[in-house]
Amino acid sequence: MFSMSAWFHWIDLAGVAVFAISGTLMAHRKHMDGFGVVVLAAVTAIGGGTLRDMILDLPVFWVSDPSFFYVILLAAFVTILWLRFHSEFPLRYLLVADAFGLAFFNVMGLQKALQYGATPFVAIALGAMTGVFGGLIRDVICREIPLVLRGELYATACIIGGAAYVLATHLDIDSDITLLIALLTTLLVRLGAMRWYWHLPVFAAHEEDPNRD
Amino acid sequence: MFSMSAWFHWIDLAGVAVFAISGTLMAHRKHMDGFGVVVLAAVTAIGGGTLRDMILDLPVFWVSDPSFFYVILLAAFVTILWLRFHSEFPLRYLLVADAFGLAFFNVMGLQKALQYGATPFVAIALGAMTGVFGGLIRDVICREIPLVLRGELYATACIIGGAAYVLATHLDIDSDITLLIALLTTLLVRLGAMRWYWHLPVFAAHEEDPNRD
Amino acid sequence: MFSMSAWFHWIDLAGVAVFAISGTLMAHRKHMDGFGVVVLAAVTAIGGGTLRDMILDLPVFWVSDPSFFYVILLAAFVTILWLRFHSEFPLRYLLVADAFGLAFFNVMGLQKALQYGATPFVAIALGAMTGVFGGLIRDVICREIPLVLRGELYATACIIGGAAYVLATHLDIDSDITLLIALLTTLLVRLGAMRWYWHLPVFAAHEEDPNRD
Repeated sequence: MFSMSAWFHWIDLAGVAVFAISGTLMAHRKHMDGFGVVVLAAVTAIGGGTLRDMILDLPVFWVSDPSFFYVILLAAFVTILWLRFHSEFPLRYLLVADAFGLAFFNVMGLQKALQYGATPFVAIALGAMTGVFGGLIRDVICREIPLVLRGELYATACIIGGAAYVLATHLDIDSDITLLIALLTTLLVRLGAMRWYWHLPVFAAHEEDPNRD
Repeated sequence: MFSMSAWFHWIDLAGVAVFAISGTLMAHRKHMDGFGVVVLAAVTAIGGGTLRDMILDLPVFWVSDPSFFYVILLAAFVTILWLRFHSEFPLRYLLVADAFGLAFFNVMGLQKALQYGATPFVAIALGAMTGVFGGLIRDVICREIPLVLRGELYATACIIGGAAYVLATHLDIDSDITLLIALLTTLLVRLGAMRWYWHLPVFAAHEEDPNRD
Repeated sequence: MFSMSAWFHWIDLAGVAVFAISGTLMAHRKHMDGFGVVVLAAVTAIGGGTLRDMILDLPVFWVSDPSFFYVILLAAFVTILWLRFHSEFPLRYLLVADAFGLAFFNVMGLQKALQYGATPFVAIALGAMTGVFGGLIRDVICREIPLVLRGELYATACIIGGAAYVLATHLDIDSDITLLIALLTTLLVRLGAMRWYWHLPVFAAHEEDPNRD
């Protein structure tokens, strides 16, 4: 049977793999070539967790464990192979891979923050940061408007998932199930927002402005 | 009466509030929506201090103190409300909010760097970095040419304010007054540069180049 | 005679100087002015090493040693002077300065990572990160497509140089010579790739796409 800590390791690896795929897909979309593709995959995959560990003043997770790099290389390689035989890929694939990575990293960030003494409020912020940061720098490097800042409940999904996690912890629900609840909540809010264009209006409607950036 | 450390806490909170406002204003300008607005406000508000603490190898200031997040949420909320009733806002407001944030964070960075053993020269650099970094990533994420790299004495204001701080410390001026001197110097240089278009010519004048980026 | 650690200090300073020059050249190209030029030079020069030290959870190299800032100021000043008397500079100069910085920082990153207990595989990644990161943020800030993501063996040069370093270490070659081998390998692969347009095809050739970004 899986222990908690094995779970966490696998979730972390799964998040890394999924974000490495999303980085590789973006590199392909941007007509990059050579090892730059792997650099973008790696930045996307380990950016969020690296920031989380630096902020929590912990040793960065991948320094003592090369398995994360093997996973990145493998994920990039498989994605590259797949792309050789499928000359097009729909943008939707990138977004779905991104949603899974977001959910995995959100939960890992939450869990690690709470474990190292953050208050629930800070832990929710740190979970969202872990989930959001890798994709944010991927988009910034590629000069896209970051997904996280578009309208479709991106950071919001992390925050709702985080609230579910904190709530379940307070209700003394079994920790593996708590993990699963937070994971699914984040994922479903994000996928639902993509599918049905949910959004959270913050500003009053603008008049259409032809000069908008 | 205020003690020094209470002062510092309030200055840090004020800097966070002011940069959160500038992040929210920029988000509105870029027609963002949902929690992405809060993400941009938070990145702008805590980016500089987070970098400072990571470089000084200290626990990051907001991990053990959720009040910074409350301030960010409050500042973003008030700004959003204000924007509902004032459909336009002049760019100048954003620049003035930014100037206050710059001055607050410059002083906090200086003070913390000196406290943890940096030499005066390094402390000035670290103060400027604290002041400049949040706005830099705000602008990079929003694909604007960063304010810090434009002509109007942005980083220079920090460096002059920092030099005033170090000088006042050497002259054994009361530490609260030293703080105030550095704060006002930074602020006035920056506001003066905006008002009267002061600049520091570094390169010889270019001929006008129609292909300039 | 030079000891190893003196070597390292000089290589670090040389890398900082060379990247400061490349940052100043880029600032000139982008028509920046004032202290923003020095900010860009500094970000380029110390960005990679700062990230390396934060990831290895070490005190950041320049906090206790102001000499790095003197070198940045000097390098920026000399470059600015030179530019006053040579109104044009070929892009090639920027690329060559960048190649030297890449090689210096790659070797420093490798060396420091191995010294603090990273496995060879992680050390190669961390060396590449040190070499690549300063230039990456320089390009992101200036809204250029980062050099590291273009086709000409940029990250790849670091990885080949890193592999040479690890190999030479395993063969018990004298540590100063190992250093030199890694330095020259990285430099020559990068310069060769620039000169003869070497590249590493990762994706199958795209049809020309008029909408490519």
